[in-house]
Amino acid sequence: MAETVQTYDGWYSLHDFRTIDWEKWQKTNEAERKQALEEFQSLISDWETVEKEKQGSHALFSIVGQKADLMFMTLRPTMKDLNMLENKLNKTALAHYMKPAYSYVSIIEKSSYTKPQTDPYEDPVMLSKLFPKIFDTEYMCFYPMSKLRGETDNWFTLPKDERGRMMFDHIKTAKPFTEQVKRIVTGSIGLDDYEWGVTLFCNDPLQFKKLIYDTRFDEVSAKYGIFGSFYIGNRLPRSEVNDYFSI
Amino acid sequence: MAETVQTYDGWYSLHDFRTIDWEKWQKTNEAERKQALEEFQSLISDWETVEKEKQGSHALFSIVGQKADLMFMTLRPTMKDLNMLENKLNKTALAHYMKPAYSYVSIIEKSSYTKPQTDPYEDPVMLSKLFPKIFDTEYMCFYPMSKLRGETDNWFTLPKDERGRMMFDHIKTAKPFTEQVKRIVTGSIGLDDYEWGVTLFCNDPLQFKKLIYDTRFDEVSAKYGIFGSFYIGNRLPRSEVNDYFSI
Amino acid sequence: MAETVQTYDGWYSLHDFRTIDWEKWQKTNEAERKQALEEFQSLISDWETVEKEKQGSHALFSIVGQKADLMFMTLRPTMKDLNMLENKLNKTALAHYMKPAYSYVSIIEKSSYTKPQTDPYEDPVMLSKLFPKIFDTEYMCFYPMSKLRGETDNWFTLPKDERGRMMFDHIKTAKPFTEQVKRIVTGSIGLDDYEWGVTLFCNDPLQFKKLIYDTRFDEVSAKYGIFGSFYIGNRLPRSEVNDYFSI
Amino acid sequence: MAETVQTYDGWYSLHDFRTIDWEKWQKTNEAERKQALEEFQSLISDWETVEKEKQGSHALFSIVGQKADLMFMTLRPTMKDLNMLENKLNKTALAHYMKPAYSYVSIIEKSSYTKPQTDPYEDPVMLSKLFPKIFDTEYMCFYPMSKLRGETDNWFTLPKDERGRMMFDHIKTAKPFTEQVKRIVTGSIGLDDYEWGVTLFCNDPLQFKKLIYDTRFDEVSAKYGIFGSFYIGNRLPRSEVNDYFSI
Amino acid sequence: MAETVQTYDGWYSLHDFRTIDWEKWQKTNEAERKQALEEFQSLISDWETVEKEKQGSHALFSIVGQKADLMFMTLRPTMKDLNMLENKLNKTALAHYMKPAYSYVSIIEKSSYTKPQTDPYEDPVMLSKLFPKIFDTEYMCFYPMSKLRGETDNWFTLPKDERGRMMFDHIKTAKPFTEQVKRIVTGSIGLDDYEWGVTLFCNDPLQFKKLIYDTRFDEVSAKYGIFGSFYIGNRLPRSEVNDYFSI
Repeated sequence: MAETVQTYDGWYSLHDFRTIDWEKWQKTNEAERKQALEEFQSLISDWETVEKEKQGSHALFSIVGQKADLMFMTLRPTMKDLNMLENKLNKTALAHYMKPAYSYVSIIEKSSYTKPQTDPYEDPVMLSKLFPKIFDTEYMCFYPMSKLRGETDNWFTLPKDERGRMMFDHIKTAKPFTEQVKRIVTGSIGLDDYEWGVTLFCNDPLQFKKLIYDTRFDEVSAKYGIFGSFYIGNRLPRSEVNDYFSI
Repeated sequence: MAETVQTYDGWYSLHDFRTIDWEKWQKTNEAERKQALEEFQSLISDWETVEKEKQGSHALFSIVGQKADLMFMTLRPTMKDLNMLENKLNKTALAHYMKPAYSYVSIIEKSSYTKPQTDPYEDPVMLSKLFPKIFDTEYMCFYPMSKLRGETDNWFTLPKDERGRMMFDHIKTAKPFTEQVKRIVTGSIGLDDYEWGVTLFCNDPLQFKKLIYDTRFDEVSAKYGIFGSFYIGNRLPRSEVNDYFSI
Repeated sequence: MAETVQTYDGWYSLHDFRTIDWEKWQKTNEAERKQALEEFQSLISDWETVEKEKQGSHALFSIVGQKADLMFMTLRPTMKDLNMLENKLNKTALAHYMKPAYSYVSIIEKSSYTKPQTDPYEDPVMLSKLFPKIFDTEYMCFYPMSKLRGETDNWFTLPKDERGRMMFDHIKTAKPFTEQVKRIVTGSIGLDDYEWGVTLFCNDPLQFKKLIYDTRFDEVSAKYGIFGSFYIGNRLPRSEVNDYFSI
Repeated sequence: MAETVQTYDGWYSLHDFRTIDWEKWQKTNEAERKQALEEFQSLISDWETVEKEKQGSHALFSIVGQKADLMFMTLRPTMKDLNMLENKLNKTALAHYMKPAYSYVSIIEKSSYTKPQTDPYEDPVMLSKLFPKIFDTEYMCFYPMSKLRGETDNWFTLPKDERGRMMFDHIKTAKPFTEQVKRIVTGSIGLDDYEWGVTLFCNDPLQFKKLIYDTRFDEVSAKYGIFGSFYIGNRLPRSEVNDYFSI
Repeated sequence: MAETVQTYDGWYSLHDFRTIDWEKWQKTNEAERKQALEEFQSLISDWETVEKEKQGSHALFSIVGQKADLMFMTLRPTMKDLNMLENKLNKTALAHYMKPAYSYVSIIEKSSYTKPQTDPYEDPVMLSKLFPKIFDTEYMCFYPMSKLRGETDNWFTLPKDERGRMMFDHIKTAKPFTEQVKRIVTGSIGLDDYEWGVTLFCNDPLQFKKLIYDTRFDEVSAKYGIFGSFYIGNRLPRSEVNDYFSI
């Protein structure tokens, strides 16, 4: 058995993708549309209160292409919180016009190949990563991923040192992008179908391609990376929601 | 031919996942909603009677994410019992608001790499595992799985001793979780598309991730584990069903 | 080129899985339901006449889980007969309440690694296998399967002797189940997506799991078996059809 | 780089599979059904004129099993002709009762591992193969296929001689079926998802299974053949179309 | 870590495939159809203005087969432009008759294995490739693709020289088609599910097959090419749109 790695866990995370039924929305009368948007704005207000109280965070994105139209990213202290948030969203009138497209359940996870010198759960920097405010950039890129367990190359049977070395090289490749591209890594083993979720944030979406292209040549990505679907979106601030839903 | 392992089998099991059509439910008039819930509550009452008579067990969970909204886990003495239970559920009014999302057919299975000293079917501990009351925890995690039959690594051509050793190591890794995380393993070769179903129960869903992460480095999981979709849910006790369906 | 095996072929076979739209059925008025069931019963009567005249066989099963609700297994002398039967079923009123779920097209096939001593088409035992009455057991298990053509292990490039030896071992493993578990093997190369269909019949569904579990350790299954979905069902005799469709 | 093979190309081909919505059809009033059939018969008349003028060919088949109900095979001189034919079919009233099930876009292709002695495009035998009248048999079998590009076995890196030898062996295996089973091979690299389409024609559908079974042991099929779904159908002559659609 | 390759990026690209609901369209009254087409023509006019101002390009194609009916290819300076264009299209009346079928998000990408002698972003030839007018040919062929990361053959762990040599050979094979077949290569790592999108343009669709067939024998394609679905279409100029939608 290979040695595991210590992980530190923060807020639970739900990425919730929806496709809008524009025809149905457009054919609804104006009063109903207005009421649905008011109810929805009120729900986001509640989320903003939660965010102010540092009990979670959220963001909306308009997804490019047909995979989805909207993505809700929500962070909460417990899985039950997420489940209740999701059920409440499903019961809104606006949800009648949004069909489920994809979702991802995970939890913010920081892992460490080296022993931390201080208790991570008392380290302010670490705490701000485990319980973050979602980055306020114009673009977002999400993809789930796993590590290969092939018959020749198997991430999970490698010695910890070798895994650590490859992760270190990987971080080095990503270094030039640190300032521009922010990320939230979530763990999903046992929670969803891939092993991790990666959410990137940047004001220039080309940097997503450049970062992922450059790192694809890293041994850890080239040999062990299994990537799910990629979703890319434009931030949809609350103030633009009504415009977005204008018919 | 590699030597098989002795298995002991208990109740048949059905995991039945449904997605709720909230719009349809919300647009139904109150009288119909009330009647549908009463009929559903009455069905659960019948299931509770069966459970009291130790002729089966059942539990409901609210699933997180879009894979499903509800999961029914039901255990019964015969496959026909399960089929009748499922058909009866399908004929309820509430089923008109729940679309099928996924299901898994299996049977509780305990396997042993060593010869038991007493007849398992007369051993009270074993009997309580083969014919269990579903654990009463707040969270549940379900996933189906198979063992790899690759061209290099093939679980089913390994000598029994080697398989036994790996399973023993696996159990050792899971040991620290024994108290917190309970599990029901069901066999599904010939009954459904994977070879086994694993249902875990815990009050802290983070332990699901930790347990499955740690064991993923075990040789048996790293090299031979093929995992289906992971479903995670919050228990929905009968007393909260009406609240859950409030509009 | 590896040497082929002689096959003997009997009736064409269609496994036709349907999912019932219970809501639609329940909301139809009683007169229409009654008429639909009478028309359906009349169709089954016709099939029974065909069966009495030894021009085919048929059986209905109530499938467990969400893969399907009903399965029709029908055997007929020609592919056109099957196609006409299927089209006629599709035109019944009851078909308006049954959505297609899956189907499998094949032909009863017996293969032999040894030269038969008598003409199989004149051997009464062989003829009863090629043109059988479907076994009258309480449970049925169906799965399609193929043989691996991997880059290392390739069934179709093995010498005939080696294939014969593995099949012989396989039959030996299955021997203890011969009395309890009956089977109809159908060939589907060129007719459907897998190479064979296996339909098992037994009064105790646990024996399906035990048989397939034991044989999975056989070299032929462990190394070369590629299995599709498994479907398990309870026999639905004609006399119980009306009960099954009671609302 | 391995040496390519010379190909000669004929008419463009569209296999168009549709599933009939029988309930919708049956619930339409008789006048509309009559009109829809007349319009459809008129469309087929137009196709027959094209066929008489040797500007293409067409055939209809009733597909067995749930993959589809009908298949239109159409051959035309240009891709635009096919596209226009398809769009015209989509605009008929009958198309309102036929949902798309699958389609395949390709072009009739003859390839040669040896240098032809005469210009194939002036050879009457070759021309009749590149611009054929679809064979008038009772049954049809269609499947798309590709050649393996595995990490060990890779068709496209093999020397041309070796590929030619395997194709020659393959043709030898198929020899005994030449009289009974006719075929149209179409190329689809760059046009659809597999590399070739194979359409077989025979009056006895068992010969499809026998031919494909025997050839599966050929090195070229056993090691390099990747097969898509298999579709089998009964010819539906124009004169039987109205009967087919009788309710 | 293998050395990456320098890429130069131009306009963002969206391939947007739609399937037309002809029945719904035909059953709409003439006034609504007329209005929908006028609105759509007006939208295309806006796009033409953008194209004249060299702020993007667009083209429509009628897709052959059932994968889709129409494809919109649109190029724009920012990802947000694409997202807004897509949302605007989704809100048109015509979109009520077009169901999403597939989409691909990418960005025009030129890569170079050799150091360019002049700044590519100041080179008029390069600029015309990064910010092109979509080629005005009768046919279009689109497919997404990735490079293999297998356990034996892994594109991303090869030395840059070796990759460069294979790409050079690939270009040599494609040479004879340069005049006839034009192409736009887009990068999609981090933006969509494959690594690149290839859009080919030609007046003779047979050349697509010939080009892709010939290059399939190149080492880079034979060993490393992973191809998604192939889509082939006829150009639909604005002047033919109304004809196309005639009922």
